[in-house]
Amino acid sequence: MTTAQEPSQGSSEASHRAVPHMSTDEFRRRGKEMVDWIADYIDRLNGPGTERPPVMAQVEPGQVYRSLPVHPPSEGEPWEAIAADIDRLVMPGVTHWQSPGFFGYFPANTCFPALLGDMLSSGLGVQGFLWHTCPSLTEVEMRVTDWLAQLIGLPASFTIEGSDKRGGGVIQSTASDAALVAMLAARERAPSIGAPTPTTGGPRLIAYTSTQAHSSIVKAAMISGVGRDNVRLIDTDEDLAMDASQLARQVRADRDAGHVPFFVSSTVGTTSTGAIDPVRTIGELTQREGMWHHIDAAYAGSALVCEEFRWMVDGWELADTFNFNPHKWMMTNFDCSVLWTRDRESITGALSITPEYLRNRASDEGLVIDYRDWQAPLGRRFRALKLWFVIRHYGADGLKAFIREHVRLAALFAELVGDDHRFELVGKRELGLVCFRLRDGSDEETKALMQRCNDTGRILLTHTVVPVGPAREERFVIRVSIGSTYVTEQAVRDAWDVISGTV
Amino acid sequence: MTTAQEPSQGSSEASHRAVPHMSTDEFRRRGKEMVDWIADYIDRLNGPGTERPPVMAQVEPGQVYRSLPVHPPSEGEPWEAIAADIDRLVMPGVTHWQSPGFFGYFPANTCFPALLGDMLSSGLGVQGFLWHTCPSLTEVEMRVTDWLAQLIGLPASFTIEGSDKRGGGVIQSTASDAALVAMLAARERAPSIGAPTPTTGGPRLIAYTSTQAHSSIVKAAMISGVGRDNVRLIDTDEDLAMDASQLARQVRADRDAGHVPFFVSSTVGTTSTGAIDPVRTIGELTQREGMWHHIDAAYAGSALVCEEFRWMVDGWELADTFNFNPHKWMMTNFDCSVLWTRDRESITGALSITPEYLRNRASDEGLVIDYRDWQAPLGRRFRALKLWFVIRHYGADGLKAFIREHVRLAALFAELVGDDHRFELVGKRELGLVCFRLRDGSDEETKALMQRCNDTGRILLTHTVVPVGPAREERFVIRVSIGSTYVTEQAVRDAWDVISGTV
Repeated sequence: MTTAQEPSQGSSEASHRAVPHMSTDEFRRRGKEMVDWIADYIDRLNGPGTERPPVMAQVEPGQVYRSLPVHPPSEGEPWEAIAADIDRLVMPGVTHWQSPGFFGYFPANTCFPALLGDMLSSGLGVQGFLWHTCPSLTEVEMRVTDWLAQLIGLPASFTIEGSDKRGGGVIQSTASDAALVAMLAARERAPSIGAPTPTTGGPRLIAYTSTQAHSSIVKAAMISGVGRDNVRLIDTDEDLAMDASQLARQVRADRDAGHVPFFVSSTVGTTSTGAIDPVRTIGELTQREGMWHHIDAAYAGSALVCEEFRWMVDGWELADTFNFNPHKWMMTNFDCSVLWTRDRESITGALSITPEYLRNRASDEGLVIDYRDWQAPLGRRFRALKLWFVIRHYGADGLKAFIREHVRLAALFAELVGDDHRFELVGKRELGLVCFRLRDGSDEETKALMQRCNDTGRILLTHTVVPVGPAREERFVIRVSIGSTYVTEQAVRDAWDVISGTV
Repeated sequence: MTTAQEPSQGSSEASHRAVPHMSTDEFRRRGKEMVDWIADYIDRLNGPGTERPPVMAQVEPGQVYRSLPVHPPSEGEPWEAIAADIDRLVMPGVTHWQSPGFFGYFPANTCFPALLGDMLSSGLGVQGFLWHTCPSLTEVEMRVTDWLAQLIGLPASFTIEGSDKRGGGVIQSTASDAALVAMLAARERAPSIGAPTPTTGGPRLIAYTSTQAHSSIVKAAMISGVGRDNVRLIDTDEDLAMDASQLARQVRADRDAGHVPFFVSSTVGTTSTGAIDPVRTIGELTQREGMWHHIDAAYAGSALVCEEFRWMVDGWELADTFNFNPHKWMMTNFDCSVLWTRDRESITGALSITPEYLRNRASDEGLVIDYRDWQAPLGRRFRALKLWFVIRHYGADGLKAFIREHVRLAALFAELVGDDHRFELVGKRELGLVCFRLRDGSDEETKALMQRCNDTGRILLTHTVVPVGPAREERFVIRVSIGSTYVTEQAVRDAWDVISGTV
């Protein structure tokens, strides 16, 4: 226990000495080493290709697990031993999401100001489930979600400041959590019916989203008890956007069958191809039908800082909830998924419990927000700090430049693919996601190509399966998602070299 | 935009220059300043009383919100301006959960090794929803939850290693999430019935917990659609532990009424008073009745590192899920709530969705764990690092010493209260939580005493309302929860001085 030391102050009893806390002096040293480790890591990811680790981890299942001792230590270990195992045991099994060669999934990018915000949040170690458990946690979050609403042009009815206490924003952990909260609020506001018994076949609550929507919508229905079978997956048009006329027909058919259509989740920027559902048409329908309209813009929402992309959300003033993840494409490291609502009462109605030990008089009087009633979990850390730092460090102009550069690189990449007769582009690219396949190849060949590209270790690509062409046949499609914080034109051209040279 | 600089490497295009990233060199500087800020903060909290900030934030509702500009900046701001606002705008509204004078709620303590782990997690910025998105994230979590199971003596049937692929541990965000997952798994395993319609009154799934259980159990029922009305709150005995015979009678009555009892959550260490439900008796009942038994030991679980407290969980081998929060009393900063199960198939059955873009062949073959199917959200960060660092830094011996010291201090505090005729102790103290009230005072007087103590700024106390005495009359009770990382005997004696001198 060589590093076991007293905290530098505040402990005088012998019994306390037995607890081997790391001293603040040692933390100063180890913390600074960790800062340098992180900076070195980011530099290495952005350095010459020869120094970069393979983007995808090169380990076998079980390899890391088996490399770790079966039993925990009885005595504490010196920090040097722990730190050495980061490089020795952990790093070989790390897939490098922050690498400029990472083009998989959607980004989960970070930046240094966000890291500083997260350090501060951890260091403060405060809880914000009730306003008074840490007023700054709640009120910085109120202000920063208002700021972010302004940055993306969200109508004021969704903000704390502009909504006369009827709307506002809250940081959730993920878009899955946000979708669940939206569905619960929708259920709260829906006409009261019981769920059916298999035998009686009574009226059912029906939710709607497109075949291209994220799996989190179905998962929210599974969790909430609405039920997987009561989610209608609406077909898409040739651009893979929800077919609003089919949605209208399905809602009508469900009403005719005695059911209660209560919730539509439209997607702005689908996971598979970045498709954009017709938000206004869907919003007009949900208003007419008294349904809840949730907009899932988990990925694409960040692009709304640029005015030229706001056509994507035309009609969002008719929605009930809007969600996007600054932890995807706005450099605010995970977790940070912002949900705004115009109807906070339905959310708190669905989620508020108030036992005595959590009672907050100020809240009873409506003076403050208790965010525990806006989310499924009780506890919550000070996540607004990292978002506050990102917005202040970059400013609106910096965030716009960031998004525009990625969209420019995606357009460039799409052009490279489009100019090569061996490939065909799939879907309609609007932002940073480019989808393509081998024009004359089988799905197996496209898949094998992706695999060979990933095996080079220079890039990481992922795939999807979507209806392609006039026949709308389901095909294997490679996705290139451009959104890594430090992605460069060179990195994109390198990716193309790998792909085009690997066919 | 004075700090807008290039990352030190990796960007050559003019267009990229427009994005004002913080350079790695600046991050090295600012990150180290942040480390010092955090160390200074912890030193100040542990320093002489005159230097300590008031434990509870002294701001009015809306004060912090209004102190922040209404609009976000167009241009980025220099780091100096951002950092200055931490002390100027944020800190006045911070309630100091890490202060040795914080005795509220349950602790949400932290330590330096955990902070280092969280820094590393943020710096890596990896996602672990599927095994291959970051194998180390998943496999360190598998190993560390196994370690923690050994440390608390949890039967091997709950571990990855010891369960023949039927059990294992997973890090959830909060105990609320863990309870929700357990309830969903229970629903998955329950005999298939529909929920009732109000008109038909069909069979219902019924969940059970005690009147003293945490609100998260009722909230899980609300979220999952089981319904608040289908949670039976079982009365407690004089120690405020669940009355198992009443539970058995209620289960019988519900079966007789045609309902389906499916889930019991027992509490080891209730939030109000730290009461311990009879785990074995409840487990025997749930086994006989084919119900799911979830054990919520969110707070008390940390104490199980000490063998002398394991009587509290006698019979836990009969449970289906066991949960505790290292982010409460094991210094692993929020969020870190570990859930173990002996029946992982019911969990993944309740939560698995598998669209093509998330498919993982290795998982189909059972070679790896995809933790997205063990939780409600999809995304997940590398939370196992901080827990790994805590266990390695302290070792089993250090963690035991930590818990024992707090329990010793709680016993000391209870003795001080018990020796003062003006007070009466409430409930049965086992661990770090001491509850008491004014012996001859009204609830209003006890409440006013607590308020005056908090107003001194030297300590923070919270309260509950529980049945007291033979009459089991609901009374206002002050809670003193001892669990701050650096709490000392002096801090506890100071707290007593404040309380006894304020009556």
